[in-house]
Amino acid sequence: MRATLIHGAGDIRVETVPDPAILSARDAIVRVTHSCICGSDLWPYKSAPAAAPRRIGHEFTGVVEAVGAEVAGLTVGDRVIAPFMYSDGTCPHCRNGFPTSCNAGGFYGTGDREGRPVDGGQGEYVRVPLADGTLVRVPADADPALSPALLSLSDVMGTGHHAAVAARVAKGSTVAVIGDGAVGLCGVLAARRLGAARILVSSRHDERWKLAESFGATDRLTTRDAAEAEELVRELTGGVGADAVLECVGTRQAFDTAVRLARPGGAVGYVGVPQELRDGHAELPLRLMFDRNVTVSGGMAPARTYLPELLDDVLAGRLDPGPVFDLTLPLEQAADGYRAMNDRTAIKVLLEP
Amino acid sequence: MRATLIHGAGDIRVETVPDPAILSARDAIVRVTHSCICGSDLWPYKSAPAAAPRRIGHEFTGVVEAVGAEVAGLTVGDRVIAPFMYSDGTCPHCRNGFPTSCNAGGFYGTGDREGRPVDGGQGEYVRVPLADGTLVRVPADADPALSPALLSLSDVMGTGHHAAVAARVAKGSTVAVIGDGAVGLCGVLAARRLGAARILVSSRHDERWKLAESFGATDRLTTRDAAEAEELVRELTGGVGADAVLECVGTRQAFDTAVRLARPGGAVGYVGVPQELRDGHAELPLRLMFDRNVTVSGGMAPARTYLPELLDDVLAGRLDPGPVFDLTLPLEQAADGYRAMNDRTAIKVLLEP
Repeated sequence: MRATLIHGAGDIRVETVPDPAILSARDAIVRVTHSCICGSDLWPYKSAPAAAPRRIGHEFTGVVEAVGAEVAGLTVGDRVIAPFMYSDGTCPHCRNGFPTSCNAGGFYGTGDREGRPVDGGQGEYVRVPLADGTLVRVPADADPALSPALLSLSDVMGTGHHAAVAARVAKGSTVAVIGDGAVGLCGVLAARRLGAARILVSSRHDERWKLAESFGATDRLTTRDAAEAEELVRELTGGVGADAVLECVGTRQAFDTAVRLARPGGAVGYVGVPQELRDGHAELPLRLMFDRNVTVSGGMAPARTYLPELLDDVLAGRLDPGPVFDLTLPLEQAADGYRAMNDRTAIKVLLEP
Repeated sequence: MRATLIHGAGDIRVETVPDPAILSARDAIVRVTHSCICGSDLWPYKSAPAAAPRRIGHEFTGVVEAVGAEVAGLTVGDRVIAPFMYSDGTCPHCRNGFPTSCNAGGFYGTGDREGRPVDGGQGEYVRVPLADGTLVRVPADADPALSPALLSLSDVMGTGHHAAVAARVAKGSTVAVIGDGAVGLCGVLAARRLGAARILVSSRHDERWKLAESFGATDRLTTRDAAEAEELVRELTGGVGADAVLECVGTRQAFDTAVRLARPGGAVGYVGVPQELRDGHAELPLRLMFDRNVTVSGGMAPARTYLPELLDDVLAGRLDPGPVFDLTLPLEQAADGYRAMNDRTAIKVLLEP
């Protein structure tokens, strides 16, 4: 089959690789109908991956082609959404709602815990371990026009939702969103869905701001300067600050700004993969967090946990993150997709085999 | 009157200072009956204060001696508890439950927003600005034996409670408490009060551990090594980790340990005044926080907000933090009290004028 590999910084290639096979009785093989490129795929693309060449991609939807002997909840032909990690759904962490910490789970594009290969999501087929715990079925009669929205539930919409949940967005909240990438835009949708009364978005790109507005954003912040942004948010909130801030970038500057925008007792929900780490540590503005009682919550989104409720809303037409995909390419042109996202000429690229 | 001043590192003196007077119509003058030394007073004591000499102390209870013309809810002779900051109770932050960020509030022992002096708590009298918003009345017939418990509501018990609330302790929680100082011990009480099923406490001092046990602690951690502590907590929790961790120290090591002890999706409630800051920033273990979705919440405890509910429990005999005071000295011996706390021969020192 054909699949995407990263060979080094800026070096993405689609190559012929071995077809996956059932390697465990709990596996399913999924024929990928839609996959996409994640903002987090750009970090190794920008800076060179830790090991290369390696398979890449972790967001996909498709059709079940084969199942292992112990798979009970899926049959060949099922349309499915794969959350961005696989998980068994039964360990204590899964039961607590955090399948991203599943005792048996893992990432796509690398080996499983027994050392057997797991395909990346940007390819024609994927062996999905722990298929019963991982894959979520889509009704066979779902409108094909919903495909981009359904694909977004694999990661980006669940991640935006996680930022909003972690930031404790509630009915009537004033929310600030840092980042106008696909995650930030999904954060806007999530904040609106959770009842935010006002949604301020940092965006210096007119096209992205337009999309944010169509998703429910009410106020635009165009400055990158944290002090200026803080002053503006105070003006817009009667001197109080935002109840909830969604940090959807991952840099120190974004984090600093996020904490400054929160009101005393407010919360920052962060989902951007942390950058600029030293020995696993980052410098956070603890003085301000302490003085203002600003909670910092978030991390890797438990997309699998959120999938059923978000899927209901997508199927019912109440939620449509589909427009975050503004460029669709054939899988063979994955490299062009990476380039477009890295150059910020595309928000998020959908790949069709 | 007599009051405590800090002149430099390790240099505490009780001196004669001007008697306070009503300087604003919203003031009250409180005659201090009980005050105490805070763990946070030890930071300037250890390292030299930013400005010296200056008045010190911020925890006290007493009797109202005089009120300004606009004070409506207090009369001369009222017994009162003063939370460790003054606040108006009416600004947006106070209404949100965070009077520590009150738009008109401030600290004891320094000037108010109009530059008028505000006394420190370790003295004979204190001018309390914004008295109606700040002071909480105690019934005149409250048992004098409750005095230490009532004094604890000024700061230390509210701070332990804040750590527990920020760490989202709930019925059935497994809780780990880092720090066996007065705040950590109050955190144990708070965790038990909120329904924790199991309370692990890091303590290497037998006497403090005994007190922790009497407050509801169930398991003792004696190691200072974060990795060892993590392994032990995992063993004690079936491999899961603690639902809630109360960080009651404020050092990088304590923070690192706290994050490691939390289960995926768990929360760290921190109330130790952050140390080792650089430009207001501290190095936090963001990689682990992100990967495990560990929430970090806390800060300066909104003691005034918690005071009514905690006071009810103290008066009803359901809550007794009094035993955290294990040494009572006359005000004139405040320097001995600082020495005892700094040498860890006393947990917390109560001062009586």
